[in-house]
Amino acid sequence: MTVREIIERHPRPISLDRDLLFRCIDECFDCSATCTACADACLGESDALELIRAIRLNLDCADLCDAVGRVVTRQTEPDLGVVRAALEACVVACRACGDECERHAAHHDHCRVCTEVCRRCEQACSDLLASVG
Amino acid sequence: MTVREIIERHPRPISLDRDLLFRCIDECFDCSATCTACADACLGESDALELIRAIRLNLDCADLCDAVGRVVTRQTEPDLGVVRAALEACVVACRACGDECERHAAHHDHCRVCTEVCRRCEQACSDLLASVG
Amino acid sequence: MTVREIIERHPRPISLDRDLLFRCIDECFDCSATCTACADACLGESDALELIRAIRLNLDCADLCDAVGRVVTRQTEPDLGVVRAALEACVVACRACGDECERHAAHHDHCRVCTEVCRRCEQACSDLLASVG
Amino acid sequence: MTVREIIERHPRPISLDRDLLFRCIDECFDCSATCTACADACLGESDALELIRAIRLNLDCADLCDAVGRVVTRQTEPDLGVVRAALEACVVACRACGDECERHAAHHDHCRVCTEVCRRCEQACSDLLASVG
Repeated sequence: MTVREIIERHPRPISLDRDLLFRCIDECFDCSATCTACADACLGESDALELIRAIRLNLDCADLCDAVGRVVTRQTEPDLGVVRAALEACVVACRACGDECERHAAHHDHCRVCTEVCRRCEQACSDLLASVG
Repeated sequence: MTVREIIERHPRPISLDRDLLFRCIDECFDCSATCTACADACLGESDALELIRAIRLNLDCADLCDAVGRVVTRQTEPDLGVVRAALEACVVACRACGDECERHAAHHDHCRVCTEVCRRCEQACSDLLASVG
Repeated sequence: MTVREIIERHPRPISLDRDLLFRCIDECFDCSATCTACADACLGESDALELIRAIRLNLDCADLCDAVGRVVTRQTEPDLGVVRAALEACVVACRACGDECERHAAHHDHCRVCTEVCRRCEQACSDLLASVG
Repeated sequence: MTVREIIERHPRPISLDRDLLFRCIDECFDCSATCTACADACLGESDALELIRAIRLNLDCADLCDAVGRVVTRQTEPDLGVVRAALEACVVACRACGDECERHAAHHDHCRVCTEVCRRCEQACSDLLASVG
């Protein structure tokens, strides 16, 4: 994603590990879009009533990943406490959504794909969090 | 706000304390809008260069309050771990933004108003968090 | 909502009609939160399969009202073309969502409430749009 | 982005041209993230006071692209009037933001990159809009 190219041209120093940061930003925005699409695909299934919890957690995960993606994207005057708490919320939302989608992965391939994206985003946020200390 | 009226007509039982929940939802959306406006007001000031950190934290706080407001609004199949982590992130963002805006409250009345809203939202999220346990 | 108090303390002149602007901001954020809640209430109903289109349009309306609410909130260096196009999109989204929720208003009281909010937001955006010219 | 993989597994037929749709979704989310980053990079520049209009339009463009990206991502029960109005708003926001960033492209390389992304997103939305009719 092009956001990396902006950050590489940013006037302020980047306080976090550059590779972990870029991966986290990519995964947050990818997970937000993927969860938006998976909620919608679940809603369109004939057995949507079995997928209510997946839809709800996809919506939560999409909203949180989007907000957290924006927070970690910003490099000007970051507050590390805010960055940390945002990443922690994202880890929890991705884990809950990934766990629920995994339960439907065998029947709905979009839930399988979504599970993988949630796991990647959870890992990327955890890794960045560990580097913040 | 009308969102209360929807929740009072919601088909599923409300798992959280009703009064604390309504106050938290109101404060999250009010704080999101107020921080969006305060970031913009700071940006329009002739001494905007002194307000860079306030602008940045206002933007973070606006994004997180909006996402968290949506998470706590939803009553269908909530995951209390996600609700808790979202509220914790909101508390931290409101505190950081309120602290920074307070430093400018004497010179910019919009920062004073924004500080008050951040404090109220921080309290409402903390109170709901305490009730979730 | 407190966002008015910020705008009243804004350093830049307000280019739009103040009363129409305040009403539009209030309605956009109220409609965004209400549609988020109505989508969730629909999702929790035992006849959710009859409400798929309502859920989908509620999600669209929530996202657009939120973005447009932010655009009209900002008073620093506005681009009236952007403001106009944003308001037009909001009018269309509120009308479509209000029309669909109205079809379910007799069976689901939250859809009745949501219809009213969508109508109010559509009107507030139309009125502000007319004043922009 | 992974969102394509979800849509390829979606239970409902895709009403729009598949290639134009995928490009539009990618560009909307890429532009939203890029404009969030460019607003932040502008804010961190020593000549930020010259970039106030760029920051404001970046914020508008980020919010609208994000909302419109979500609307076009959803394939269940779309309302083509809403899709059309959303795309039109996105075209206008991308053009305004691209024009303003272009004015600073010679001095700030992140504005040059951002201009290119805004142009690509404007084109992708226009192309999808033309195919909707």
